[in-house]
Amino acid sequence: MKRDIKICYIGGGSKLWARVFMSDLAVAEGLSGEMALYDIDREAAERNAKIGVRINENPNTKSKLEYKVYDKLEDALSGATFVLLSILPGTFKEMRSDVHTPEKYGIYQSVGDTAGPGGVLRAMRTVPIYEDFAKKIKEICPDAWVINFTNPMSICIKVLYDVFPEIKAFGCCHEVFHAQKLLTVMLKELRGIDVHRSQIYTDACGVNHFTWITRARYEDIDLLALVPEFAEKFGEEGYYEEGDDRFAFETNPFAYGNKVKIDLFEKYGALAAAGDRHLAEFLPNKWYLKDPETVKAWKFGLTTVDYREADQAQKIADTIEMAEGRKEFEVVKSDEEAVELMKALLGGGTVVSNVNMPNRGQMPQMPLGSIVETNCVFSNDTVSPVVSRPLPTGASNLVYRCCVNIDNTYLGIKERDLDKIYQAFVNQALCNSLSMEESKELFREMCLNTREYLDPYYDLDTYFGC
Amino acid sequence: MKRDIKICYIGGGSKLWARVFMSDLAVAEGLSGEMALYDIDREAAERNAKIGVRINENPNTKSKLEYKVYDKLEDALSGATFVLLSILPGTFKEMRSDVHTPEKYGIYQSVGDTAGPGGVLRAMRTVPIYEDFAKKIKEICPDAWVINFTNPMSICIKVLYDVFPEIKAFGCCHEVFHAQKLLTVMLKELRGIDVHRSQIYTDACGVNHFTWITRARYEDIDLLALVPEFAEKFGEEGYYEEGDDRFAFETNPFAYGNKVKIDLFEKYGALAAAGDRHLAEFLPNKWYLKDPETVKAWKFGLTTVDYREADQAQKIADTIEMAEGRKEFEVVKSDEEAVELMKALLGGGTVVSNVNMPNRGQMPQMPLGSIVETNCVFSNDTVSPVVSRPLPTGASNLVYRCCVNIDNTYLGIKERDLDKIYQAFVNQALCNSLSMEESKELFREMCLNTREYLDPYYDLDTYFGC
Amino acid sequence: MKRDIKICYIGGGSKLWARVFMSDLAVAEGLSGEMALYDIDREAAERNAKIGVRINENPNTKSKLEYKVYDKLEDALSGATFVLLSILPGTFKEMRSDVHTPEKYGIYQSVGDTAGPGGVLRAMRTVPIYEDFAKKIKEICPDAWVINFTNPMSICIKVLYDVFPEIKAFGCCHEVFHAQKLLTVMLKELRGIDVHRSQIYTDACGVNHFTWITRARYEDIDLLALVPEFAEKFGEEGYYEEGDDRFAFETNPFAYGNKVKIDLFEKYGALAAAGDRHLAEFLPNKWYLKDPETVKAWKFGLTTVDYREADQAQKIADTIEMAEGRKEFEVVKSDEEAVELMKALLGGGTVVSNVNMPNRGQMPQMPLGSIVETNCVFSNDTVSPVVSRPLPTGASNLVYRCCVNIDNTYLGIKERDLDKIYQAFVNQALCNSLSMEESKELFREMCLNTREYLDPYYDLDTYFGC
Amino acid sequence: MKRDIKICYIGGGSKLWARVFMSDLAVAEGLSGEMALYDIDREAAERNAKIGVRINENPNTKSKLEYKVYDKLEDALSGATFVLLSILPGTFKEMRSDVHTPEKYGIYQSVGDTAGPGGVLRAMRTVPIYEDFAKKIKEICPDAWVINFTNPMSICIKVLYDVFPEIKAFGCCHEVFHAQKLLTVMLKELRGIDVHRSQIYTDACGVNHFTWITRARYEDIDLLALVPEFAEKFGEEGYYEEGDDRFAFETNPFAYGNKVKIDLFEKYGALAAAGDRHLAEFLPNKWYLKDPETVKAWKFGLTTVDYREADQAQKIADTIEMAEGRKEFEVVKSDEEAVELMKALLGGGTVVSNVNMPNRGQMPQMPLGSIVETNCVFSNDTVSPVVSRPLPTGASNLVYRCCVNIDNTYLGIKERDLDKIYQAFVNQALCNSLSMEESKELFREMCLNTREYLDPYYDLDTYFGC
Repeated sequence: MKRDIKICYIGGGSKLWARVFMSDLAVAEGLSGEMALYDIDREAAERNAKIGVRINENPNTKSKLEYKVYDKLEDALSGATFVLLSILPGTFKEMRSDVHTPEKYGIYQSVGDTAGPGGVLRAMRTVPIYEDFAKKIKEICPDAWVINFTNPMSICIKVLYDVFPEIKAFGCCHEVFHAQKLLTVMLKELRGIDVHRSQIYTDACGVNHFTWITRARYEDIDLLALVPEFAEKFGEEGYYEEGDDRFAFETNPFAYGNKVKIDLFEKYGALAAAGDRHLAEFLPNKWYLKDPETVKAWKFGLTTVDYREADQAQKIADTIEMAEGRKEFEVVKSDEEAVELMKALLGGGTVVSNVNMPNRGQMPQMPLGSIVETNCVFSNDTVSPVVSRPLPTGASNLVYRCCVNIDNTYLGIKERDLDKIYQAFVNQALCNSLSMEESKELFREMCLNTREYLDPYYDLDTYFGC
Repeated sequence: MKRDIKICYIGGGSKLWARVFMSDLAVAEGLSGEMALYDIDREAAERNAKIGVRINENPNTKSKLEYKVYDKLEDALSGATFVLLSILPGTFKEMRSDVHTPEKYGIYQSVGDTAGPGGVLRAMRTVPIYEDFAKKIKEICPDAWVINFTNPMSICIKVLYDVFPEIKAFGCCHEVFHAQKLLTVMLKELRGIDVHRSQIYTDACGVNHFTWITRARYEDIDLLALVPEFAEKFGEEGYYEEGDDRFAFETNPFAYGNKVKIDLFEKYGALAAAGDRHLAEFLPNKWYLKDPETVKAWKFGLTTVDYREADQAQKIADTIEMAEGRKEFEVVKSDEEAVELMKALLGGGTVVSNVNMPNRGQMPQMPLGSIVETNCVFSNDTVSPVVSRPLPTGASNLVYRCCVNIDNTYLGIKERDLDKIYQAFVNQALCNSLSMEESKELFREMCLNTREYLDPYYDLDTYFGC
Repeated sequence: MKRDIKICYIGGGSKLWARVFMSDLAVAEGLSGEMALYDIDREAAERNAKIGVRINENPNTKSKLEYKVYDKLEDALSGATFVLLSILPGTFKEMRSDVHTPEKYGIYQSVGDTAGPGGVLRAMRTVPIYEDFAKKIKEICPDAWVINFTNPMSICIKVLYDVFPEIKAFGCCHEVFHAQKLLTVMLKELRGIDVHRSQIYTDACGVNHFTWITRARYEDIDLLALVPEFAEKFGEEGYYEEGDDRFAFETNPFAYGNKVKIDLFEKYGALAAAGDRHLAEFLPNKWYLKDPETVKAWKFGLTTVDYREADQAQKIADTIEMAEGRKEFEVVKSDEEAVELMKALLGGGTVVSNVNMPNRGQMPQMPLGSIVETNCVFSNDTVSPVVSRPLPTGASNLVYRCCVNIDNTYLGIKERDLDKIYQAFVNQALCNSLSMEESKELFREMCLNTREYLDPYYDLDTYFGC
Repeated sequence: MKRDIKICYIGGGSKLWARVFMSDLAVAEGLSGEMALYDIDREAAERNAKIGVRINENPNTKSKLEYKVYDKLEDALSGATFVLLSILPGTFKEMRSDVHTPEKYGIYQSVGDTAGPGGVLRAMRTVPIYEDFAKKIKEICPDAWVINFTNPMSICIKVLYDVFPEIKAFGCCHEVFHAQKLLTVMLKELRGIDVHRSQIYTDACGVNHFTWITRARYEDIDLLALVPEFAEKFGEEGYYEEGDDRFAFETNPFAYGNKVKIDLFEKYGALAAAGDRHLAEFLPNKWYLKDPETVKAWKFGLTTVDYREADQAQKIADTIEMAEGRKEFEVVKSDEEAVELMKALLGGGTVVSNVNMPNRGQMPQMPLGSIVETNCVFSNDTVSPVVSRPLPTGASNLVYRCCVNIDNTYLGIKERDLDKIYQAFVNQALCNSLSMEESKELFREMCLNTREYLDPYYDLDTYFGC
């Protein structure tokens, strides 16, 4: 296994996630080298560097990396073995428009960063940034492995491969892990068997945040066959699988009771494998997101940007506390898998996990080149997608439509063609209950709200006749 | 050219269309043989036979066929050179449910026989009938050419080829002709050039009733380039291309002002080539069918079943008058093309026209095996689809979704699987603004309303918990 | 119909074919404008211009064009409505190597310009020339229709579309016409019915010079069903369908007795639709081209380059005689179809004929983008391929292999990669009986023989270690 | 992990391989249950049962299975968890014809059981037997995992899936392991690093016995990049990677010096991953199998059936000695992987290995449904193919042709259509240097030689005009 590495971490300055990742690295054995931190908010990167110093002092730490903050992206990329991308495209101001402007038109979004009107607008801000990333990686570190965590995930991966087809990139997302966790909960609640999700085999496929588990087994037990029994017992009240409180969705807007998932299982015969708040956004808005009451009845929440802002402020404060040694934190292995995938790529064994990559045959029912999430085999400097079991027809059609929407959103943005973007916008499942006047007006309003990020690429005044 | 033929005409007893077709045959040169009439309403077939006698007496008639009414379908099929299918699946009672029940849920349908909830229910009645046709044709007259006029067109063709893959069948529809007519009107109004639609070349493709013209030329003139100018001049008030009164849509529910077509042209860059009342049903219901006022503003109409019933009664009365010699009618060539296609198949030259057939490559962007409408070359005993020009991306996605909906509707019905049919039902563009409770309830109500035709195939009581 | 046109005719200076084409144009009604003649051998172009003057004086001439000779290709192309490409890539010296060098290795070629070692070498000379044509057409007359007559046909069309994907190009070849003619001969000999080939409908598909007729009808008669009877009666002695002498193959190396065609029909169940001398080159060399005796037994000939040279000298002499008025010639409609296709493209009606174009779905079994020959519909400024009937499996595999060979030959030449070209070279059916040493040596010898045309693109000395 | 199993082992009575497999099972931990032995030669099965008893007495044995011999295949299959297929289709008499009859026509075969004329004839005997297996498995133990070891491998898997599409079957072959072993030898010889093949990651794909490694890495080292250096050093003299004697090919007809492999690497840029004696049979016969001298120069051998017969007699004698306790044998883990794959399927972890399965997308360049060999992920009751890296174009074409040949051989046999089988026969690379008379005569002779196995399915007398 290669051991001396340089990780270039772009963004990640505003989230606890960086610390989790850094801890996972620290407890891995036998790594050394540099963690190059770059964030357009330099202070954020510096906070992470300080956390890095703390981690290196921790007794659990086995791999010490040198944490360095860079002023220039190019320097951070230079010589990188891995490039991690974890940015916020725009600010909370733009996110506020993405999430809340559609509410005036009766379109509620529980997340607003992937599918639906919010996802399209966020994609419009993201694509130019990622075009730049892809060009720089091609030029500076074409051999680096690029791991994306930014949303909209599929669009990010699409840009990277479109600009630099030989790129070695994939996208990691932990939503499927939650569904695997839910399956272990079922096993515990219904059969009294206590296992970690890594002990069950699942075949998952779809597009990011709208992935489906088509097969899941533990020993002799077909776990999907447990779903109806689980639904019978816990489906009414809901069950959140993370943490101790299965009713967390009553207080925590990131939690959910899995009722949407169970309903979709009954309809389509496969287990949708992402948080309910993500799943709902890929379906007609009258289904699970009709209005706040409907959302509540389905036991999930509408994450407001106010909440996000407060939440992030708290996380930054925590990070400062930790960075300055006033707050303890543990250096232990998390449930994330990125570091394990990295080790496999460095030659440290073979791992199978689900990530996002261009479809080269792994989902034969979907368009080639669309970004799909499936199991992949990670091995020495290689990621190979695993051909997934076909989805049931009904679910397959839903996913196909998502692929088409993502591909066309990207195509329109790539060509800076507002007509094409608008065609993809109205074709979002969440937008299908709007009249044409409404959808036009909503698109206009959302574009103008976020024009600071769009003006360099589009002539909005002419297009919208301002 | 083969001249001595037997045409087996199934249905067609309740419409003037049979007379038009019989007149077209009569004025064709050099045909002889038999027209075998079969209708489950024997009286209707007999009316047509009497019309046939009148036609044979007409001085314009060049080809005299012997008109015979049959009691048994098998006998009518025996020895057939051509089989014409033109039936009503169910009665006005069922049609009333198809068209008007969804209105209670805010779903207005201008036709209700193709896409949308009405189309799905009508398909459920049609498939078993066509399975029987296909089996009998396979057994009795496997070499006959089968021409379908029944709606839902795509489903009918799908059944025929699925049950009997070697069948020689295609589906004829005159909707594209209207769009060609509209193009000639543009040429007349804007350039002062007066031509028949047969003088312009068009490349049309899509699914039946949602077909698009991607190219249209007369001499040096690109006709699609005229659309914006036409829209400017006549788009506001509307323009119905048939007959003398361009405002016919104000009084005639079958007429329309082409405003939907023009709006789609502006959005998608190709000319949707079916009546506006058909087109609207393939799109989200808030676009053109939101409510009766919206429909009126778009200059088309909601055809009520009351109107249809009265209209048909009048047509039958007319037919009786004609059959009994009390009402004159002309024996002249109409604007329909079926007889010309038949002559080409008999070896009388080569004709290019648009018909519905399984996709074997003629629309490479659509699923193979889906029923698509494109130009085809008709020649001696052969129909060969012509590869169509690719649709603009946005329109292509809309059509793809239709293909998927049709294929899945058929699959569910073929397997008599109400869950799968319901999945296709909720995936109709017209249904995308319904909540799940509403769509479930609507599906239930429509099934129970028409159960007389469904009970032999489904256990509705168990499924709907009656 | 558009009438005032400019035809840019590139090459064609050394063949009688130019005169035939010019006569066909002359007897067409209602055309006017210019014929721009360009040939790297300016004298040849001038001869054709003089022939043009003679034609314009002829009483049969209805359409008089102005014949002008150009010094610069760019000027000839400027403003062109049509561009005709009919060149010889290289000289007889290179052709001599293409055709005869392989004979030293036991590889006999009857034509040597399409498949087999000669075809590959000729392709190596042709591609750079056509790359230049495509670039100039793109720049100077992107809207012109480009009609190719040069061999290797498939490679020529491939280059044009690869360099300029929006080009409006197709390739015309009369080989299928001969097979249609043969079918009319069968009808005459076996059934006493005398018709022109245009009266029978055929469905032909494949790659140029290896096209197959899968269906052919006249009135009620299935013409392919006549082949065994014809084989029984005339198959032993052979039958050449052109002209009065069915034994012409005994004296004329361009003639053939159709025994290969009949043999392939027995093996594969479809009628190979090109001259036997072409067909034989697509099959293992031990089948029909094992040695001169085998060729003779199969009733076709090995066209030597000596013969070709003498033949061309005679044709040039004839042309001079005609140009200078010392020899009479008729101005009448020939059996070629190019002018009819051009008229259709100018808006003068719809014509169906077989030409070579990139596969967009017309042969769903073949790779998309391969150049295939199928029926196409010619209409106002449009050529649309017709989906062909599937070939019988065995024939389909043979054609597939040709597509792959052509695509890979082109790919190697495009990349100027001798390794890849050699891989395509050894994969030719004619080369499959060579040992590796032989095929390497043959490839080397053929490249070096024709290095005058290859040196600008390849470093042959290094590659072959000279 | 499921532990109590029934393994139904069909055939395997004449080879040492059964003992190796039984030993691997014995040293695996935690298995119990039954090994049901069935062989048309009951004595052979009984010998294996006795070996089983010996194994159970061995101190290394951790898993004791009950060995039972069955008279009826149906009983052996009943209740099976696994079905192992390892038969000889026909006897040495037929094999003698397969291998040696073509030599009269200049076609030498080094194995004669996969590609080439021998492979086709062997397939003709195999298909009916496997049709029967597939039907019985479908009826008796549809949930069993079926592991095939019989050749022709691709044909066997093709039959199983064609007759019973839901079958859970794959084909195991150790040829790729040898190529992996060769890579470890290169690492040792050139870099002094000593590793087991399981420590290197390889991406292999192709068809059985014509598989290619497109990527192979150990730590930081690209192993394919070592090939030229290895070729330089050992390529001239040859290097057999198994055992201590790298010149084993001089005495052992199953050994080979890897010169073919190295030559193909130079030509096509990927490492062909099967024994040279297999590889040579997929290529034109003049390349490596021109005559016995050529074979010798390429450092491999023509395995005669005399040798095979003697070799098997010796193996049977050995088996008897072992079964009766007169000869010692070791119960240790072999280098085969079947037992590890079985354990993974029983829920004992995840394993990646290369096996043969229908192409569902794992080789997007090959026809869907063709049997391809690629890496697959083995996990709890699931085998999922891994999408392979694309082959270099030249190699891809060679493999594609193999897929087509296999598919068509199967199609012809399935339809009992000698014409179609003959079309596939002449399309074998090894047959491409035959004249038509020769190939017809060879086919006839080989069919008649083995008619005992063909007469139930074909009317050879009529076909060959005996």
